[in-house]
Amino acid sequence: MTQGLLVINAGSSSIKFALYAVQAQSLVPHYRGQADGLGGRKARLRFTDADGNRLLDHDLRESADHDEALDRALQWLEQHLGGLRLLAAGHRLVHGGPHFDSPVRLDADTLAQLESFSQLAPLHQPHNLKAIHAVARLRPDLAQVACFDTAVHRSQPREAQRFALPREYEEKGILRYGFHGLSYEYIASVLPDHDERATHGRTVVAHLGNGASMCALLAGRSIATTMGFTALDGLPMGQRCGSIDPGVLLYLLQSEGMSASELEDLLYRRSGLLGLSGISSDMRELLESNDPAAAEAVSYYVYRAVREVGSLAAAMGGLDALVFTAGVGENAAPVRSAICRHLQWLGLSLDEEANTRGDMRISTEASRMSAWVIPTDEELMIARHTLDCLQNP
Amino acid sequence: MTQGLLVINAGSSSIKFALYAVQAQSLVPHYRGQADGLGGRKARLRFTDADGNRLLDHDLRESADHDEALDRALQWLEQHLGGLRLLAAGHRLVHGGPHFDSPVRLDADTLAQLESFSQLAPLHQPHNLKAIHAVARLRPDLAQVACFDTAVHRSQPREAQRFALPREYEEKGILRYGFHGLSYEYIASVLPDHDERATHGRTVVAHLGNGASMCALLAGRSIATTMGFTALDGLPMGQRCGSIDPGVLLYLLQSEGMSASELEDLLYRRSGLLGLSGISSDMRELLESNDPAAAEAVSYYVYRAVREVGSLAAAMGGLDALVFTAGVGENAAPVRSAICRHLQWLGLSLDEEANTRGDMRISTEASRMSAWVIPTDEELMIARHTLDCLQNP
Repeated sequence: MTQGLLVINAGSSSIKFALYAVQAQSLVPHYRGQADGLGGRKARLRFTDADGNRLLDHDLRESADHDEALDRALQWLEQHLGGLRLLAAGHRLVHGGPHFDSPVRLDADTLAQLESFSQLAPLHQPHNLKAIHAVARLRPDLAQVACFDTAVHRSQPREAQRFALPREYEEKGILRYGFHGLSYEYIASVLPDHDERATHGRTVVAHLGNGASMCALLAGRSIATTMGFTALDGLPMGQRCGSIDPGVLLYLLQSEGMSASELEDLLYRRSGLLGLSGISSDMRELLESNDPAAAEAVSYYVYRAVREVGSLAAAMGGLDALVFTAGVGENAAPVRSAICRHLQWLGLSLDEEANTRGDMRISTEASRMSAWVIPTDEELMIARHTLDCLQNP
Repeated sequence: MTQGLLVINAGSSSIKFALYAVQAQSLVPHYRGQADGLGGRKARLRFTDADGNRLLDHDLRESADHDEALDRALQWLEQHLGGLRLLAAGHRLVHGGPHFDSPVRLDADTLAQLESFSQLAPLHQPHNLKAIHAVARLRPDLAQVACFDTAVHRSQPREAQRFALPREYEEKGILRYGFHGLSYEYIASVLPDHDERATHGRTVVAHLGNGASMCALLAGRSIATTMGFTALDGLPMGQRCGSIDPGVLLYLLQSEGMSASELEDLLYRRSGLLGLSGISSDMRELLESNDPAAAEAVSYYVYRAVREVGSLAAAMGGLDALVFTAGVGENAAPVRSAICRHLQWLGLSLDEEANTRGDMRISTEASRMSAWVIPTDEELMIARHTLDCLQNP
């Protein structure tokens, strides 16, 4: 009987599912699913097969939460496993704290540790843990594996992981953890298929989604990243501010009388592209808009991205390749083009036509450094980790 | 009768004085003075002549404040003007707000505007204003000129001056102002004496003092800088944290129950080199220490400086020259050496012997980009601005 691996990637308002068949050590996609709009008016659950054919398109109750979506999805999957016998479930965990530097098979002790990181990532970690508990309710004996967005960054030099705070704050776990690690690991894993020099050299991966960060990969290992203690730092994002002077927070607290929760709402939900444009957090809408404020927001986004590429190049002593991935990175050709045009000084020569067409390689043949568009696949990375964790415990 | 210009540069716990004679359009140093340790146990006021000979070395009362030091210094100066007839007093003002992009002659209206910026720089601006009022008390009719640390940065492109906050925050004056502008202007003014290519090209100036920032000068104009809304952002400093994830502040407020004023104390007075080392905020002491924590603090300082050079180079599309200035920049050869060694990828070849000797040029003849140590002189820059402001109102 063919074995199957279930992958659950729970975000703040959505959950992605994937089911893989394990065939002769390779992972064959079987189903993909997604619950969207959780907590909102149009919560919805969909499943497709490997060819993208719709198998389920189900409206969830208004304000359906993560628990409801998980239960509904797991029920559907139970009824549609076909010939597959579930071997394990693999989960994305946003936060692995200071010590988890690789995936781990879950037991009660480990789970308790992961619960304790919830206060470090309150918008994500509790949802990740809910998914683990939902699977355990339905299949108490199924092996479960946690794969961490922070793990890959634990290889960074100490200077890159610290803040200039008193030493006791580091012991309390206040570090630059970095995130999007599963995406970076996936890109590092496929880089040899595309670019031998980048594989062994100095690559910046730009994971530009609704959340956005960049990672400096030196011979495939993370040595610096733009996100820090939380997913708020670094690049500006759809609704998040990215890097900001800490003095702004002190000023808003002390002179404008804002509370900590008002600040949190401002910096997590009303800033970034949405705040700058006053129009939308969605890069597609901004690129289509004729409003000068939309163009200004895009200019700011590009400018900060260019500055961060320079900073990460300095961490590696130069740059051999730049890889764009995730929603904006994979789809927003004008954004890629603008970023690349500001990197000519690093030897990047953009092939504008290839970029507009959406080719994988978007630098010219003559370019001293290469530039790529490579779709990320966090679910496949989780499935690989999960299988590896069971086979090499 | 020869005319004289008085310069007052008031900091948070010290005040610098300089008196220049205006002779045939050139400014000849006459006296320099400094009040140190204000508010502490060993407050002291000293004056020297242009050759460094001591003219006054006076212990002020314990806990003597800025007002007392100013009154005492101005009295002494009145009695020692020799043949000089005071033409004007020029002041360093830390904050010029969003609109002052050049020095300004003070009148009641202007002064009221400058008072309103005090909440933007509470540790510095009130002291700067005290100096103006002290001079006005003694010499009500003397012309006074304000020179701003923020002014030179108003030439930056809009992207460099913004945060990714909702647009109304920009209108409230929440911008990346940048500081140390008088130091950067001075360096830009003497760059033609040293490096023709840097003068017209892409230079990063590293003002590394107890406060520290860097500025990207493109053909002598500031186009980006590391400090932001306050003097807390960017590079780590003696006691200040520099760049930090805003999520750390939210966490300390929400999960650790810190108050805004405790946070301010942490980030302004207990962080930076002092926090990292647990030993000292003074780079000299850290370089002399055998404690591993001292070495780690220095490594962090160097690492962040290298990252910021990369980021500023990206803002300019490359780098032709790097200039070190201010206390650490002018004196800490091992710090300069470590930073330069990490910039080989930009074409910087350090002349280690020249660096150790403390030569002005510390890059080799063959180096693709140049590196320099140039002592800054904010007081002379203020004197030049003041004279210019009176002659070309």
